[in-house]
Amino acid sequence: MFETAELGRKVDKKSYKQRVPPLREELLRLQEDIRQRRTHQVILLFAGVDGGGKGETVNLLNEWLDPRWMMTNAYAPPDELERQRPAFWRYWRDLPPRGRIGMFLSAWYSQPILDHVYGRSQPHEFDARLDRILSYETALADDGAAIIKFWMHLSHSGQERRLKNLEQDPLTQARVTERDWDNWRHYDRFIEVAEHVISRTHTGKTPWVIVEGEDANYRSLTVGDTIRDTFLRLPRGAAQVSGLPATTKDVNKSAKKKSKAQPAKREALEAATHINVLTQLDMTQSVSKERYLEELRNLQAEIHLLHLRARHKGVATLLVFEGPDAAGKGGAIRRVNAALEARNYQVHGVSKPTDEELAQHYLWRFWRNIPRDGYMAMYDRSWYGRVLVERVDGLASEEEWRRAYAEIHDFENQLIEHGIILIKYWIHITKDEQLRRFKQRKRTPHKRWKLTEDDWRNRKRWEQYELSVHDMVQYTSTDRAPWTLVEGNDKRYARIKVLQTLRDRWVSVLGQTAEPSTRVVRAASRRR
Amino acid sequence: MFETAELGRKVDKKSYKQRVPPLREELLRLQEDIRQRRTHQVILLFAGVDGGGKGETVNLLNEWLDPRWMMTNAYAPPDELERQRPAFWRYWRDLPPRGRIGMFLSAWYSQPILDHVYGRSQPHEFDARLDRILSYETALADDGAAIIKFWMHLSHSGQERRLKNLEQDPLTQARVTERDWDNWRHYDRFIEVAEHVISRTHTGKTPWVIVEGEDANYRSLTVGDTIRDTFLRLPRGAAQVSGLPATTKDVNKSAKKKSKAQPAKREALEAATHINVLTQLDMTQSVSKERYLEELRNLQAEIHLLHLRARHKGVATLLVFEGPDAAGKGGAIRRVNAALEARNYQVHGVSKPTDEELAQHYLWRFWRNIPRDGYMAMYDRSWYGRVLVERVDGLASEEEWRRAYAEIHDFENQLIEHGIILIKYWIHITKDEQLRRFKQRKRTPHKRWKLTEDDWRNRKRWEQYELSVHDMVQYTSTDRAPWTLVEGNDKRYARIKVLQTLRDRWVSVLGQTAEPSTRVVRAASRRR
Repeated sequence: MFETAELGRKVDKKSYKQRVPPLREELLRLQEDIRQRRTHQVILLFAGVDGGGKGETVNLLNEWLDPRWMMTNAYAPPDELERQRPAFWRYWRDLPPRGRIGMFLSAWYSQPILDHVYGRSQPHEFDARLDRILSYETALADDGAAIIKFWMHLSHSGQERRLKNLEQDPLTQARVTERDWDNWRHYDRFIEVAEHVISRTHTGKTPWVIVEGEDANYRSLTVGDTIRDTFLRLPRGAAQVSGLPATTKDVNKSAKKKSKAQPAKREALEAATHINVLTQLDMTQSVSKERYLEELRNLQAEIHLLHLRARHKGVATLLVFEGPDAAGKGGAIRRVNAALEARNYQVHGVSKPTDEELAQHYLWRFWRNIPRDGYMAMYDRSWYGRVLVERVDGLASEEEWRRAYAEIHDFENQLIEHGIILIKYWIHITKDEQLRRFKQRKRTPHKRWKLTEDDWRNRKRWEQYELSVHDMVQYTSTDRAPWTLVEGNDKRYARIKVLQTLRDRWVSVLGQTAEPSTRVVRAASRRR
Repeated sequence: MFETAELGRKVDKKSYKQRVPPLREELLRLQEDIRQRRTHQVILLFAGVDGGGKGETVNLLNEWLDPRWMMTNAYAPPDELERQRPAFWRYWRDLPPRGRIGMFLSAWYSQPILDHVYGRSQPHEFDARLDRILSYETALADDGAAIIKFWMHLSHSGQERRLKNLEQDPLTQARVTERDWDNWRHYDRFIEVAEHVISRTHTGKTPWVIVEGEDANYRSLTVGDTIRDTFLRLPRGAAQVSGLPATTKDVNKSAKKKSKAQPAKREALEAATHINVLTQLDMTQSVSKERYLEELRNLQAEIHLLHLRARHKGVATLLVFEGPDAAGKGGAIRRVNAALEARNYQVHGVSKPTDEELAQHYLWRFWRNIPRDGYMAMYDRSWYGRVLVERVDGLASEEEWRRAYAEIHDFENQLIEHGIILIKYWIHITKDEQLRRFKQRKRTPHKRWKLTEDDWRNRKRWEQYELSVHDMVQYTSTDRAPWTLVEGNDKRYARIKVLQTLRDRWVSVLGQTAEPSTRVVRAASRRR
């Protein structure tokens, strides 16, 4: 999840100065529009790592927007009067009215997270508190509130650096307390808890946006652009409030047209920094043919034994393969299959849904084919199509793909809780490498059938796909169901990494086999 | 909750025979429409007390509707293949495609309820399983599924009668097993668990309908009418499914117009039986003036002492008063006040929301005034306005008041978990008695101001109000937050019952006072 916010994205001073004025102008215009319509209350919540820029961002927004129609709410531990009421009393009290913006610092997330980090709550208590938060936010969102929750992230070392910098500056020295350092020492636990919080409380209507907090320019623009995009998406006229006068319809119509024409600002920003989980991969990695053949033989032998053991113990395994066209998904799957007994696995190629599948919830076709205990299923493309191709091609509405992250999270949790081992591979190739492979396919008679018009069409949307992959990793790579990103320009390297990852997961669950193979590729461990 | 389904509602043979043919015709027409549009899947779930008529109703619907487009799913304990997959696998597998109707017998509710009744699951595990159910149902509803969950209810003695009848008939003898009797012996626990299940999984999109199961005619018509009403409410054209052809627009438009003109069938049925939680009250109860004065003095003295104790122990109390115009809410509140120290309580008269309140979620104004620990708040009308006046007068949309039951449940749970004692009174008067009081007010100069145009207007909607009160009690009277229905035609009787109820609740939480008063009114215990 947080690997997507440790990439070193930056915006230089010059671009920042260019981007801010039009953004501010638009934010002000939208704020005024929301204020006049009085149909939506806006709730901006800032949580995250200490030093990630929560306070700075709130100050900046007070500068960028019209502060007369905004309120900022920060919370100390409950005082006497607050402790004498239910915990949410103070948050209800501080809600902005329709037409206004309320900014909340950590607020209702603070205590549940800290209590759980420091072992003061049991998992089920913690979940109950998160469910209460979700009910609260959902009730407000159902009532028309626009809710955005920003998670300001810093890496472990980034946080250390930031705290030290603050301490060295006499002006900011006092802001760093022993508690901050104490939290920093619990960083890993904090991040683990945060991942759970975000997975459980991220829905289409109450989304989290994870912000890389290291560079102030990038951070500020990300927040500003996200707010602007959300404001533009607000339904107009729909949230009619009883008793309040209706709004002018003509203004609505023209604004709606306008909003459709404009691309999302945040996507433009991400495209401009051009840094995401995919661009950060070292795509030059390769394996020699000799090493490959030797390693392949060893790994396949080991995997053969491990799967017999999995079969015996009744442990099912589900492999998901996603990646651009021609990335080598099929080839990797065949190298896994070669190590297995044919009756113990199934490969599911996922293409356009059948009529029967279209008449059901999109997850239905995947529920159908869940492997039995001890068996194995491999998916060449998967349910992630909802947030990849369906998002990019507009086959799913924005509301549909946005709520899909939570639905997928719930689906995968059910697999994992049943004891299924779930491994998700994104096999990546560069745009150039894809072109090379396309051309090669065109030249090779027995491969020509593999190349379709769709492939060329998808290629034109490469940047949109990259962003959707980035978001997918952000919201669905969790401790229990991580994504393994596979550098696929060298097919041999990719296949070995796929097999090693599977072997490692099996070994960690089923125990070592008698003959551990040597390792060519660096530990294909989970990227965090 | 279930007191609303133990009222002895019946439909005689003649009316039944009159009502069924047009209902069947309309159901068939609507089923065909849904089938052709292929935008919604229909999920009808039947759960409840053994013998409540689940199976019979499913058989009947297979007769009434076109069985070619329906499927019935009943579940034995998971078989070998099912146990080898996550628990929801079989329920996903059995979903009807869009355009069809799936009927489910107990299904995903069965195991969680039984496990909890028989002590095989802890409360937090149980809640986690209910949350999973809610995620499942919500994902389907978000995708356009029409979901109705019927809880077929029988009273304890009603269930016994029913099982014995089945046993005596050689044809049905074999259907009664030792397990049924075992469940019957756990009736109270079963009902307690069911109440929790329904409260937690009843939402606007995934509603429960509690059906009185005693009389087969009433039961069948209730189910049929509810299905018909739900079908008519389905959004048309909204749930456009990618890849499927759009539907004929003209048909939709005319159908929409038609549906607006027709009243909800179920309401008509309830009005025809004219039995609900209010009509079942014994409105003739009264107290003589002498007994009243004596009892009032005793109760007020006791309440005075108890509130000092509550104040000292920091226990807050919140009294909700609802009832028709002129029911005597204010008078009852004054009799409570007279026993309290003025600085320890507040009375909130709830009328039309202010501008400030209108610009917030409807619960906001109530969160504002939650009493501090040890204090007391009395509400003359309350948040229940959402499901009473706002529903009847159309100030809240159907979607809004339907989801309000779950929101109120969550709100009240937070009060109760904080330790607040919550007592909800419905002070009832008959329609005739109201007229008498209105006329009296007109004649009495110092009371004339109390009578407004609104009062006469509301009176015209008496039957609609009655139904909304019935539904309110059905969904919001729970073990932890019961409604006390007060027979209010005799003001003295009503006031004594209000005070006794408060005294009894305080005694149960704070302990007995030195001087227990005698009792005039029969135990004002919770109606179940």
